[in-house]
Amino acid sequence: MTLFRRLLGDALRAERMKRGLTLREVSAEARVSLGYISEIERGQKEASSELLASLCNALDVALSDLLRSVSDAALAEERALLGVPAITPAPSAVVVSAA
Amino acid sequence: MTLFRRLLGDALRAERMKRGLTLREVSAEARVSLGYISEIERGQKEASSELLASLCNALDVALSDLLRSVSDAALAEERALLGVPAITPAPSAVVVSAA
Repeated sequence: MTLFRRLLGDALRAERMKRGLTLREVSAEARVSLGYISEIERGQKEASSELLASLCNALDVALSDLLRSVSDAALAEERALLGVPAITPAPSAVVVSAA
Repeated sequence: MTLFRRLLGDALRAERMKRGLTLREVSAEARVSLGYISEIERGQKEASSELLASLCNALDVALSDLLRSVSDAALAEERALLGVPAITPAPSAVVVSAA
């Protein structure tokens, strides 16, 4: 089963890595415990909507961009489950920064 | 603040309406209480990832498609907050007017 929290965790970790941030830095910025963020990144805990907004803010990523990444990952998994070859992502997956 | 559960609730309701399904029908199909689904649609409760998968299944919508709708709605809201004029929406986008 494709679980949202696992794909979300992967996307959050990817955004953090892209910015070269440590869990500790994101934890301080988002005011969320390091252990909790780590569990979210590993898809072990659900993030509340408020926490998700806070993490997006700390990572300086728009919620829309993060969710698009998750949608793309879900699509890739759905296609893999159906045995459909991967396709090139839609051009609309362009990053829009809300900063 | 743009809250994921509110946008998700809107998207779930839109999918249910599109299919002409009642809350009762989705409740029976997804094996989730009617009251709980109603609260999720109104953005009052967070849906666990397992419940979200179950709702997608009951609504016969791919998680990727649902999340893309939510991403589009989040983008529209982010742009409205920034005072950016609405752009031509992607085919799956929900139109949000900048109030």
